[in-house]
Amino acid sequence: MTYCVGMNLEQGLLFASDSRTNAGVDHIATFCKMHIFETAGERLIVLLNAGNLATTQSVVSLLRARCNGDGANLLTIRSLYEAAELVGATLREVIARDAGEAGMGQGVDFGGSFLVGGQLRGEAPRLFNVYPQGNFIEATPDTPYFQIGEAKYGKPIIDRVIHYSTPLAEAAKCTLISFDSTIRSNLSVGLPIDLLQHRNNSFVPATPYRVTADDPYFNQIRAAWGCGLRKVFAELPDADWLSPD
Amino acid sequence: MTYCVGMNLEQGLLFASDSRTNAGVDHIATFCKMHIFETAGERLIVLLNAGNLATTQSVVSLLRARCNGDGANLLTIRSLYEAAELVGATLREVIARDAGEAGMGQGVDFGGSFLVGGQLRGEAPRLFNVYPQGNFIEATPDTPYFQIGEAKYGKPIIDRVIHYSTPLAEAAKCTLISFDSTIRSNLSVGLPIDLLQHRNNSFVPATPYRVTADDPYFNQIRAAWGCGLRKVFAELPDADWLSPD
Repeated sequence: MTYCVGMNLEQGLLFASDSRTNAGVDHIATFCKMHIFETAGERLIVLLNAGNLATTQSVVSLLRARCNGDGANLLTIRSLYEAAELVGATLREVIARDAGEAGMGQGVDFGGSFLVGGQLRGEAPRLFNVYPQGNFIEATPDTPYFQIGEAKYGKPIIDRVIHYSTPLAEAAKCTLISFDSTIRSNLSVGLPIDLLQHRNNSFVPATPYRVTADDPYFNQIRAAWGCGLRKVFAELPDADWLSPD
Repeated sequence: MTYCVGMNLEQGLLFASDSRTNAGVDHIATFCKMHIFETAGERLIVLLNAGNLATTQSVVSLLRARCNGDGANLLTIRSLYEAAELVGATLREVIARDAGEAGMGQGVDFGGSFLVGGQLRGEAPRLFNVYPQGNFIEATPDTPYFQIGEAKYGKPIIDRVIHYSTPLAEAAKCTLISFDSTIRSNLSVGLPIDLLQHRNNSFVPATPYRVTADDPYFNQIRAAWGCGLRKVFAELPDADWLSPD
């Protein structure tokens, strides 16, 4: 499995992805699930993927290869909406190729999904969630974040903390905590985590930060968080209807 | 959906279930998912159910009706292991009846699952997780709890807090927090919560406590928990690699 988070907040965009893939419990491997398409000073488009790795890798390979061609591609399209359309169409194309005919009825799930976000100069930052069917929804100030993959373990903390006006640095902290909860509860999500922030209109070269198992900051906040949680928990009052110890 | 938790701890057993059922978003209803079979001073068997309501209700109805018959039933079997066997067999019977022939290929999931726990005098308390296939696993001191239904949202807090030696009152608090997280993040799980504790060898009549939306204690701890979490979160240090605000 996989866990990816994308947020479109007042200050800008945040992307994070784990890097574990597995087929059953045997084939565990590390693959980066964050893919960046950019033109310095002009355009940043970030893709995060979840689901069938053969499908999503093919989609990214085709999108990259086509950046050198004449047709519409991620370096020429004129809006993030068109980027989501293009990712969706390419996803449908790959699934039709692999799952059609030979692949049918083998009990394999060829589906994949993408978060597609970024900013083109002249447009506000945007973030889309592209479904395996190739259709998509866009984040709004009411619902400024999306998760794909193993989303449930890490959702409660995001639901409690994140609003459209949450500062980016705080959102990044919350995202790391959300990953920590997911990694503790589910073997199929694993370190390292790739994390990327994009401040509105900054257009500096995108440099994802890679959080590894020995990252001092990540270990500091996951320890502080675990310890703080247990402390808050210990301070909760007892109920008179609970059997006493 | 549903969310149920069962724990077999050093001091005794704990059971909790929500009471929302839904078919799509339209058919939302309240059904208690905790079913008690007991003989005063001698036997307590508790069933929690998740999955297809038609299936699980039928299983419970048949198990109850058969308590008046001559065959093996939950009031005559000699161990909790036999109780899990009986629940599993009845589950298979109902699924075969409903999903066999007419029900096949309608795209309906007839599956259901049960947590089966309790104590028979002379035996230690035991807890089983009965799968839709009717087979089952038993909780041990290494893994003293099971969840069924919408389990993921509420798993991280249980993973952090619960050990075999956790006192029952603390386990009940943790369970309520786990339900709070689940209810906040998932519409298909809802109040009231039924919560039951059984101290080892107590055999007092089982009286589940029903936590409703206006339960003062539940509201007190969910508020304190939310507030405490945000406080712990606010105190986490910033990373120097996070873009400052």
